[in-house]
Amino acid sequence: MSKIEIIPLGGIGEFGMNSMGIRYEDEMIVVDAGMGFPEETPYGVDISIPNFDFLEEYRDDLTALILTHGHEDHIGALPYFLRKFNLPVYASRFTLGLAEKKLDEHKMLDEVLLHRVHPNDVAEVGNFRIEFIHASHSLVDCFSLAIKTPIGTIIHTGDYKIDDSPVIGKPYDLKTLKKYGDEGVLALLGDSTNATVEGRTPSETAVIPAFEEIFENTTGRIFVSTFASSIHRLQIVFDVAEQFGKKVCILGRSMQKNIEIASEFSLLSIPEDVLVGMGESRSLNDDEIVYLVTGSQAESRAVLWNLATSGYKGLEVGKGDTVVLSARIIPGNEKAISRMIGHLYKRGANIIEEKRRLIHVSGHASQEDIRIMVETARPKFLVPIHGEYRMLFRHKEFAKNHIDGYTDDNVILIENGDLLEIDETGARVVENHQLGRTFIDEESLSEIEYETIRERKKLAYGGAVSLVVTIDKASKRLTAEPSISFQGVAGVDLGNGLLDDAREAIKAAVSVMSPHEMADVSWLQETLRIHLKRFIQKEIGTKPVIVTTIVEV
Amino acid sequence: MSKIEIIPLGGIGEFGMNSMGIRYEDEMIVVDAGMGFPEETPYGVDISIPNFDFLEEYRDDLTALILTHGHEDHIGALPYFLRKFNLPVYASRFTLGLAEKKLDEHKMLDEVLLHRVHPNDVAEVGNFRIEFIHASHSLVDCFSLAIKTPIGTIIHTGDYKIDDSPVIGKPYDLKTLKKYGDEGVLALLGDSTNATVEGRTPSETAVIPAFEEIFENTTGRIFVSTFASSIHRLQIVFDVAEQFGKKVCILGRSMQKNIEIASEFSLLSIPEDVLVGMGESRSLNDDEIVYLVTGSQAESRAVLWNLATSGYKGLEVGKGDTVVLSARIIPGNEKAISRMIGHLYKRGANIIEEKRRLIHVSGHASQEDIRIMVETARPKFLVPIHGEYRMLFRHKEFAKNHIDGYTDDNVILIENGDLLEIDETGARVVENHQLGRTFIDEESLSEIEYETIRERKKLAYGGAVSLVVTIDKASKRLTAEPSISFQGVAGVDLGNGLLDDAREAIKAAVSVMSPHEMADVSWLQETLRIHLKRFIQKEIGTKPVIVTTIVEV
Repeated sequence: MSKIEIIPLGGIGEFGMNSMGIRYEDEMIVVDAGMGFPEETPYGVDISIPNFDFLEEYRDDLTALILTHGHEDHIGALPYFLRKFNLPVYASRFTLGLAEKKLDEHKMLDEVLLHRVHPNDVAEVGNFRIEFIHASHSLVDCFSLAIKTPIGTIIHTGDYKIDDSPVIGKPYDLKTLKKYGDEGVLALLGDSTNATVEGRTPSETAVIPAFEEIFENTTGRIFVSTFASSIHRLQIVFDVAEQFGKKVCILGRSMQKNIEIASEFSLLSIPEDVLVGMGESRSLNDDEIVYLVTGSQAESRAVLWNLATSGYKGLEVGKGDTVVLSARIIPGNEKAISRMIGHLYKRGANIIEEKRRLIHVSGHASQEDIRIMVETARPKFLVPIHGEYRMLFRHKEFAKNHIDGYTDDNVILIENGDLLEIDETGARVVENHQLGRTFIDEESLSEIEYETIRERKKLAYGGAVSLVVTIDKASKRLTAEPSISFQGVAGVDLGNGLLDDAREAIKAAVSVMSPHEMADVSWLQETLRIHLKRFIQKEIGTKPVIVTTIVEV
Repeated sequence: MSKIEIIPLGGIGEFGMNSMGIRYEDEMIVVDAGMGFPEETPYGVDISIPNFDFLEEYRDDLTALILTHGHEDHIGALPYFLRKFNLPVYASRFTLGLAEKKLDEHKMLDEVLLHRVHPNDVAEVGNFRIEFIHASHSLVDCFSLAIKTPIGTIIHTGDYKIDDSPVIGKPYDLKTLKKYGDEGVLALLGDSTNATVEGRTPSETAVIPAFEEIFENTTGRIFVSTFASSIHRLQIVFDVAEQFGKKVCILGRSMQKNIEIASEFSLLSIPEDVLVGMGESRSLNDDEIVYLVTGSQAESRAVLWNLATSGYKGLEVGKGDTVVLSARIIPGNEKAISRMIGHLYKRGANIIEEKRRLIHVSGHASQEDIRIMVETARPKFLVPIHGEYRMLFRHKEFAKNHIDGYTDDNVILIENGDLLEIDETGARVVENHQLGRTFIDEESLSEIEYETIRERKKLAYGGAVSLVVTIDKASKRLTAEPSISFQGVAGVDLGNGLLDDAREAIKAAVSVMSPHEMADVSWLQETLRIHLKRFIQKEIGTKPVIVTTIVEV
């Protein structure tokens, strides 16, 4: 019997790295190729991406990569994915705009086939018929996907909220969704990011009154920090600035890039004469200028962190300035953001946080948005995706307790690496693979192996010691003083005689070895390593990585 | 003219490490010696403590260490402080109980003079007359301090909230505070932890109804996780368990220790027959047992993390169990706690979080508590302490905008290492020293220098390479193949010829050197190091730490 296989590669049980394989018979499409921000940054890791190597066994089946929208957790792994599997890509105008910049940076633009699609376009990819449904989100030009196969339709929501009055573009296209609902939907893969939040997610327009009030009443300079991709928010800042006779200056490369792409497709309309460059901005009165800046997450290389600490290109935040933090705090960034706010306070700035004013709304579906989605599509099976396990679980709980017709039997929790089989008779996880993640060093664009990370962790924790022992090949005796160097070892004060004592300990160890024993260089190497390890453990109480080199002359 | 000098050593502009020097003429007391939880844990750092070395210049003036209460951010650095400055210690029964355990672990108990003090006791320490004022907080047996000097009284609030109905002990002793207010208070050093929070902080008793409801309606086992030191909370769990016919089993060493000390001084009264051991707990029905467990912050060695993942001493959380997370999330722990909750959900447990039910209250003064404190003591100068800079700043803003008589002139923001002079005519920061922090490796009990951390960060980021080159003393030629070992270097696949190429590159570099050049071993060492660095940068794109050893034979 025919079946559909759902294979999540990332984004299930974690934030970021969203990617999903969907297979019918011998054809497979992949939805999204996102990146994540791992905790392994101290070990030279810049980003993490799903373990796409797992798709090798499906190489011959792969037909297309479909992108739901342009956020990094959905397209950030694009170059790495395409380098392994050079599939045709389908995406919206704005998403493709971002993807093209990315591929250009990786010098891959010429090698990839890109299809630009519009809402309600249909892509026929082998046995799959994919309709792109206009979705509302914090970004523009986003899609949910209706993926029709010979045995049923899968709805992949992408990231969404049900926004009845977005700043830019139309509301969520519930009409098309309902059409599929009426025809019958086999399974819905639904965004869980905000499944723990009650009620409806406010519309993007909900923040306008607070911005109006701030812009009207502030006499000093205004710095608005938001995500570079929050195009609705940027539009509001431009509009409200014009309303109150202020100019806007953009600071930050990623924001400039996004504004450029959005403007190209008329997804952002900047009122005439509102935009000014940095030079002109300096000649304006304090009450005439709004700076739109990157760095809401206190990223050390972004504009706001620099403004808070040393200044940015000669611009400094000071007394009388107002900083509007129009973004949520991404978990993990709390401490850095708190430090940044402290720095801004020290400079005398007034800070407006989203906790205290309605200057930010989420782009993700809250529980009542989820209800609308599910009640419109009425899928036979509901599969929570996009989110940590607690969010997936709460998504399921909400559906079970608050939406008619959903029970433990048809709300299916999955994990990365699962193989979820769906057919008319049911849905079941039949396999699970431990996929892991792939760590990327963005400078060298190369993968960093787990083993390398493990070694780096040991080096970080205790430092490194290099021991070099020189042995006469014939006599098997030391021909020079053992050489010992320390890197990052605590308690090593070169004046305290420790180095001499360590050398003596090694010499003493060698002196009791027989020439026969010493002829075995790997034995000698390991024995001296252990000897030095114990000596250091005893004398300093630490456990550095010890590298021993035996030189035979 | 006589003056009082306030010298904060830690806890200003940061969470944790609270410690404050207070000096009058040639006498100085220190209030608290707290520890912090630094972000440098990947580098072998367990805790951070204030840089007490700074007090060396006051060594002859130091007379006493006063502890306000027993939380680790106030007493965690005690053994390290006393090892440098063996002063007499003044503290409450419970605080001393904890301090004694700590000093015993460090084998220092016999060397230290400890004074046990009670509320309204007065300690005469040289020119200082210190009254211990009973303070309400999340812990028991806490003090604010009234520090009387010949030129005026300083109130140090310690950590506090104005709790009118604590579970254990009396409300905050506003009467004694008012006595000092009536006499005249020169300066008040006030807890800022919750200065960003509007209104009053709820009483410790505020959580009782939610616990009653949960204990009444839960038929499965209940696991309550809270801070080991939240004695009020523990009392509530014991009381409500008795009320609903349940037994309580304590899991976790620190919680057992705290319960033991609190019981010793009758600060905790455990209803008869309520406490059971782990063995007995297993023989009870699911609706008869409550486990009180450590690990609310998802610490990997605490009980709850183990229960969520592998199980704890054969005990496993499963379907039907309820986990009550009766604690706030300490910033920095969000991700780990979210992961832990995910694991618990996977096991089928029901989770009750403080965001959704009133099962936790803060122990710190909110804005209206601060108002009561300041309006009762009516200090000439208000000095916000304990908190990140944004909290200190908001403390000042609140006082300026909402309490009569406080302005920029008499609310003084200070930083660690400041020397704040206060006398009848005014208060002014006259010096600032960059104090830094001291990192401690708790295994070896030794300090880790900044330079060591810097080296470890480099090792962590790029790994290490050891290069050994052997030179004939006379001919100045290589006598053996260069030896190269890699630790934690990405992209080094020993099968790809990179190692051979690196060796060849070193040999080529040596071959063009003159014997004269090579006679300078440090030049040779540095030149080869740079050579190898460039080779690796070019071939793999990474920057490991390179240690070069030249062996001359």
